[in-house]
Amino acid sequence: MNELELLRRLIPTLPSNDRVVAGAGDDCAVLDLGLPERLLLFKTDAVVAGVHFEADAPAVKVGHKALARALSDIAAMGGTPVSALVTLALPREFAADYVAEIYEGMTALAQRHKVAISGGETTTNPERLLISIALLGTVSRTRWARRTGAQVGDAIFVTGQLGGSRGGRHLDFEPRLAEGQWLVESFELHSMIDLSDGLASDLRHLMEPGGLGAELNKASIPVSRAARLQAKQLAGAKSPLLAALTDGEDFELLFTVASRDAVALLDAWKARFPLLPLTCIGRMTREPGLRLRDAHGAQLFTGHGYVHFA
Amino acid sequence: MNELELLRRLIPTLPSNDRVVAGAGDDCAVLDLGLPERLLLFKTDAVVAGVHFEADAPAVKVGHKALARALSDIAAMGGTPVSALVTLALPREFAADYVAEIYEGMTALAQRHKVAISGGETTTNPERLLISIALLGTVSRTRWARRTGAQVGDAIFVTGQLGGSRGGRHLDFEPRLAEGQWLVESFELHSMIDLSDGLASDLRHLMEPGGLGAELNKASIPVSRAARLQAKQLAGAKSPLLAALTDGEDFELLFTVASRDAVALLDAWKARFPLLPLTCIGRMTREPGLRLRDAHGAQLFTGHGYVHFA
Repeated sequence: MNELELLRRLIPTLPSNDRVVAGAGDDCAVLDLGLPERLLLFKTDAVVAGVHFEADAPAVKVGHKALARALSDIAAMGGTPVSALVTLALPREFAADYVAEIYEGMTALAQRHKVAISGGETTTNPERLLISIALLGTVSRTRWARRTGAQVGDAIFVTGQLGGSRGGRHLDFEPRLAEGQWLVESFELHSMIDLSDGLASDLRHLMEPGGLGAELNKASIPVSRAARLQAKQLAGAKSPLLAALTDGEDFELLFTVASRDAVALLDAWKARFPLLPLTCIGRMTREPGLRLRDAHGAQLFTGHGYVHFA
Repeated sequence: MNELELLRRLIPTLPSNDRVVAGAGDDCAVLDLGLPERLLLFKTDAVVAGVHFEADAPAVKVGHKALARALSDIAAMGGTPVSALVTLALPREFAADYVAEIYEGMTALAQRHKVAISGGETTTNPERLLISIALLGTVSRTRWARRTGAQVGDAIFVTGQLGGSRGGRHLDFEPRLAEGQWLVESFELHSMIDLSDGLASDLRHLMEPGGLGAELNKASIPVSRAARLQAKQLAGAKSPLLAALTDGEDFELLFTVASRDAVALLDAWKARFPLLPLTCIGRMTREPGLRLRDAHGAQLFTGHGYVHFA
């Protein structure tokens, strides 16, 4: 049994109680504390120097990224963030200015989304900086999205453009909070997730709960300019399409709706979010597996995105 | 400006919103999400190998301690824990069994206190294990305790016995949840805190908000057997009294009530919690500063407890 296997076996044995609507396995834990119209969303996310960002990354962007990743998970359920706690685990030697800039990056983002930073703590992590964000939000009791629920024939949509995030975007992406809220309020979403590990990997989280598959139209996948540039400039780089499928850290929204809603959704989206592309990239299928279709037919795609440690 | 100074200056500039009743500076953040009878408590706490526990500490106890520390902060406000998220930042090489045992320790404690472990994440912290716990709880909207509110003449109480925790108790203490809840429900507590940094240090958090002082009766301070043993066995060890004042990691409750309530509280406590000592150790004074009184008079005590990094 390897380590990831072990963790997967442990999770179902963790204690629950009657407040828990959804525990481990979705973007956030969902709790029912008795609010008449809202459920609570509860999430933690950590970034580590040298793992999630380069040690020389600008501190303002590191702070931004740490909070933005957690906000993206609230967005993926259509929720509204309320309050964050910040755990800074600092190396023995650190510059006060660097810490101030981390907070600067977090504060600017928090203010844009009306999230309180309600405290937290600092502790010591001798060798490197680690930032863990705990986030509390709410979501409509009747209209929220989760990873489970995709159906055969669903249209698959993705916001923005994918791939090449490591070129810079992973440090300054904006979490799709307004978009996620609007989506769950305006349409019957069957499933939603935010893209952290890469389209090919995260799409599997929408396929697997129902034992479904998906077929994507190669030509429809929105490839970012960064992915195209990297393919040109770096010897041995992934093709732009492969980058869009597997790079990870896009933090765009991936969701499915009944195919009959697809056109209305696209039209309404263009009116509401004219600056952010929304693309229908394919459909959910009864046959398990992820297939890529082009003029020559459909081929099984077995690659995954960037696989996080767990 | 040193680092701690900087952090203290940053905290008041962090963004807030109309849901925040109390932010940084109390044991937990307190949020009002509109539940008719309850407020939310929100807390994070991290432990790091080699900082908060020895690298060879039994994993079951490490897991227990990580969750128990956060539960102790909920106890300090008289709250009830609901749900925890666990962030495990694991070194590159780790034993699956060790991780399973960490969860075992947390699970046993969570079950005793009916707390759900609703997920979390694992990530990489190459050099050492770090565990961060995010905890959500609730507390009565009208009956909860905080650090501020102590008044001149208040009787000062502490549960249990103090000092010598590093001899072992810091790994297996039980958070005083039932005691904290009973206290806020049964009496008008003026202030409360859990003892993490040591009596002398944590008492200052109850003194400073009102510009008050405190006078403790040396002979009343409940010194643990571990503190006495360590004073005998270790050359150069602190005196047992100094250990009780400054060792830290006792995780007992320290609180103040009006002196007129002191006797009734002690009597009711003995009936409700006959196995756990509760001791009146002194009183809040108008003169700032912490004084220790014995047969020869009162002396200013300037020592602090174990000062955490922040």
